Amino acid sequence: MQNRKSPKAGGLAAAKLLKEHGQNVLVLEARGRVGGRLYTVKDERIDYVDLGGAYVGPTQDRVLRFARELGIQTHLNDGSGDSLFYTKGRARRFVGVKQPMGSIAAYLDLNNLYRTLDRMVKQVPAEAPWQAPNAREWDAMTVQQFYDKIIWTKEAMFCAMELVEQIVCCEPNEASLLWFLWYLASGDGLLRILLIGNGAEERKWVGGSQQLCQKAMERIGIESVLLNHPVCRITQGLNDVSVHDVYANKYTSKYVILAIPTSTQSKILYDPPLPSGKIQLMQRAPMGRVVKTFMYYERAFWREKGISGCISIDDPDSLVGGTMEDLKQDGSHPAIMGFIVGDKVLSAQMKSKKERQLIIQEQYYRVFGTEEALHPIRYEEFDWTQEQWSEGGFTSTLPPGYLTKYGSDIRSPVGRLYFAGTETACHWSGYMDGAVEAGERAAREILGASGQLSKDEIWKEEQEDPEVKATPLGLTFWEQRLPSVPEFLVITGFTTATSLAGLCYYLYLKYRK
Amino acid sequence: MQNRKSPKAGGLAAAKLLKEHGQNVLVLEARGRVGGRLYTVKDERIDYVDLGGAYVGPTQDRVLRFARELGIQTHLNDGSGDSLFYTKGRARRFVGVKQPMGSIAAYLDLNNLYRTLDRMVKQVPAEAPWQAPNAREWDAMTVQQFYDKIIWTKEAMFCAMELVEQIVCCEPNEASLLWFLWYLASGDGLLRILLIGNGAEERKWVGGSQQLCQKAMERIGIESVLLNHPVCRITQGLNDVSVHDVYANKYTSKYVILAIPTSTQSKILYDPPLPSGKIQLMQRAPMGRVVKTFMYYERAFWREKGISGCISIDDPDSLVGGTMEDLKQDGSHPAIMGFIVGDKVLSAQMKSKKERQLIIQEQYYRVFGTEEALHPIRYEEFDWTQEQWSEGGFTSTLPPGYLTKYGSDIRSPVGRLYFAGTETACHWSGYMDGAVEAGERAAREILGASGQLSKDEIWKEEQEDPEVKATPLGLTFWEQRLPSVPEFLVITGFTTATSLAGLCYYLYLKYRK
Repeated sequence: MQNRKSPKAGGLAAAKLLKEHGQNVLVLEARGRVGGRLYTVKDERIDYVDLGGAYVGPTQDRVLRFARELGIQTHLNDGSGDSLFYTKGRARRFVGVKQPMGSIAAYLDLNNLYRTLDRMVKQVPAEAPWQAPNAREWDAMTVQQFYDKIIWTKEAMFCAMELVEQIVCCEPNEASLLWFLWYLASGDGLLRILLIGNGAEERKWVGGSQQLCQKAMERIGIESVLLNHPVCRITQGLNDVSVHDVYANKYTSKYVILAIPTSTQSKILYDPPLPSGKIQLMQRAPMGRVVKTFMYYERAFWREKGISGCISIDDPDSLVGGTMEDLKQDGSHPAIMGFIVGDKVLSAQMKSKKERQLIIQEQYYRVFGTEEALHPIRYEEFDWTQEQWSEGGFTSTLPPGYLTKYGSDIRSPVGRLYFAGTETACHWSGYMDGAVEAGERAAREILGASGQLSKDEIWKEEQEDPEVKATPLGLTFWEQRLPSVPEFLVITGFTTATSLAGLCYYLYLKYRK
Repeated sequence: MQNRKSPKAGGLAAAKLLKEHGQNVLVLEARGRVGGRLYTVKDERIDYVDLGGAYVGPTQDRVLRFARELGIQTHLNDGSGDSLFYTKGRARRFVGVKQPMGSIAAYLDLNNLYRTLDRMVKQVPAEAPWQAPNAREWDAMTVQQFYDKIIWTKEAMFCAMELVEQIVCCEPNEASLLWFLWYLASGDGLLRILLIGNGAEERKWVGGSQQLCQKAMERIGIESVLLNHPVCRITQGLNDVSVHDVYANKYTSKYVILAIPTSTQSKILYDPPLPSGKIQLMQRAPMGRVVKTFMYYERAFWREKGISGCISIDDPDSLVGGTMEDLKQDGSHPAIMGFIVGDKVLSAQMKSKKERQLIIQEQYYRVFGTEEALHPIRYEEFDWTQEQWSEGGFTSTLPPGYLTKYGSDIRSPVGRLYFAGTETACHWSGYMDGAVEAGERAAREILGASGQLSKDEIWKEEQEDPEVKATPLGLTFWEQRLPSVPEFLVITGFTTATSLAGLCYYLYLKYRK
């Protein structure tokens, strides 16, 4: 056999492409299942539930094409209805991605944040964020430091922090600003990432996301995938490379693709050792911290009030920060899916599963104001921070400094060893689409190394999916032009000063002599 | 056999103590040598050189007692002579730990930094830094953010940054302020850590530091130590625990001590998995980055000018930031030992060994102003960032937020698995003394668990070494009372205002009418 892999979702994409090019492949999987961070649990009472990655949307054309090849379909999430922003003990309704603010200052503040992020994201090349004009400056600070500079109001600060927590599952003081901007750039911008319709949460997979891996496994042949085979050693020779599992089995091949998160690369002993840059990077890319929860109800009672099921919760006692409705394709098995992320995972872990359920359902009761929220028919959850093969979710985060110092090491091959995994993707990194991009790119790198492809065929543009089409996104005329808080103060000050001067002149004219 | 270990320096201390209590022990070592971050290379032209940990001093009583038991002696480093501060292309002589500043403002600034750090360190309990009164606030910021708040002058900022770089081998924007303060507290304060005489660099081991491990290995029996046996899996049952090496050998015992750096704990698969806190912590404790270099000369020519060999180099083109003289006990084999740390390791890695030597010797020539500096007889170096078992040096660093969130997880046992390694020590963490403290504490935890010791015997006070005595350290009267830069400006402002007022009054009196 010729090529071996230690894969998650993207590993099977790599294996499939290599197999289609006539290569022999063997996939070594540490877990007792394929899927990695895609994990679909079946249960007769709820049909199935995606406890890991679930969503897909326009511009994620690689995974859409990959799924089409495997015969997996998507269904739309219903983005209609009002969202809720629960703050100061009350729920405010809103439409769109920006929560309604309680003051003009906070409104301008949040608007300015979106606009500023949008402008900055456009300056960060998804393929090489370290080449952004301000790369060094932005990589030297955390997202929180940046927020402290441009945000003036408490309300906008909450929403700004929630953006980071909900998108990358870490606290704003844990991540490099440049890295966060790059993550947004890699996902076609902030709006695309946040939206349901026309955005990253537009669709789910009929039957669950883990099928992507299960069907890919069937396609390449179940006999080519070894489950429960954690790899502990990779030894490279001049002409081949050997992968050793924890049972001391040895698999020798021409090339190996490692399709695992950056931090878990340290689970393997490399002989010869990896270069210093890789050793340093894998110590500095902690996974986000997330618990995914589902509260199932008899009926989607929120819909009766015209509520979409999307809530943003500003309450220190709440475990869940953001939610979304979860339905099957036929509208059955309604649930509110809620993420517990970042530091809140620590609070959640001090409670039992039953206590967590009670805290969350009481929160939903306070938000929806409907007694029915207190009577779920089932509660499901999965704590990714306890899962030793992923070590967290959705993806790796990078603290300040490391994207500019070690970022280019993330996908550079070492001898016969190639690196996939959604962390190494340029587009939709952290998503299934990124996993497919990275896996297929690594596979083509190997085809290139073995002379089957030329160098310029390794990175491939993907055509837009025939069914899932993207509409361009951008800020509105006013969103782009409204003043920020300091600008507003200057304008207000100037207007007030002018008015007062006018008044004085008027009084002067009226009463002189 | 009863107890197994995956050890570095501290693992052998644990094994020795357990053996002395009649336990059977087996030590599994990944490398082809014992010693971990203690690495002594023998060579006839330089006798031997400590490429890893080397120094020991007063208050490090555990490792001094441990060495005495093994018959290993120390010799004094000669701290006499002037130190040099090379800045703006010139070398300034000085005595003590604080570099001479070029202006009163910079002098007051640096003095204020030392005083402020000293006061803050005293508020951080070495045993539980998360209980410091300002723990949350200090853990929320990097050392750099703190520096940006209190430092006013460029010169003092350089020295402040160098403090972090030379003590923990990371950049000030990489580490939590609370963690750095705790590290200083664990090492008996900033002055103790920096000093040669009466400080952490007072002595070296006659024959090299690695002997501590080699002789401990002989003491417990060479047959009880398996070299080249990387551990890849630890499986715990109700009554025992099994350690699996990469060759699929299985060793079953009552207890296991893991004496490896925090980040390298992720190299092992745990069944059942470690708790979430450990999984998260081991992703968030990157090792410092350091290359240790030695430039050997025919004669200690710097001594002829009354220079100690300690240089602090403020020059962006320099690879080495700080140096110290390195001599054998009899004064032979003189060398300048220099550390390349933090981001400078990246620049160093872009050069060949020969190029690095040339850059460094030319730097020494500029600093010492002596032609002889250009003619070393030998150059030695070791890049710890390329060493996959340590992944860097001297020790783990903690980015903001994690000491308060996960700090207490670092040494909490998990079932039959106990945690040693200098990172888990309360005193002299990061040093050999911490490794011995941690190893012996873990051994006593096991003796406690097996009923041979009571709970209050696990943590043990150590008596002061009979030969290596500490003198109390503190800031002088003036160091404690001189104003900071803003205070100075207020005083100057006030004095100037008062003088001007006095002058005006004088002129008024003189010229009135």
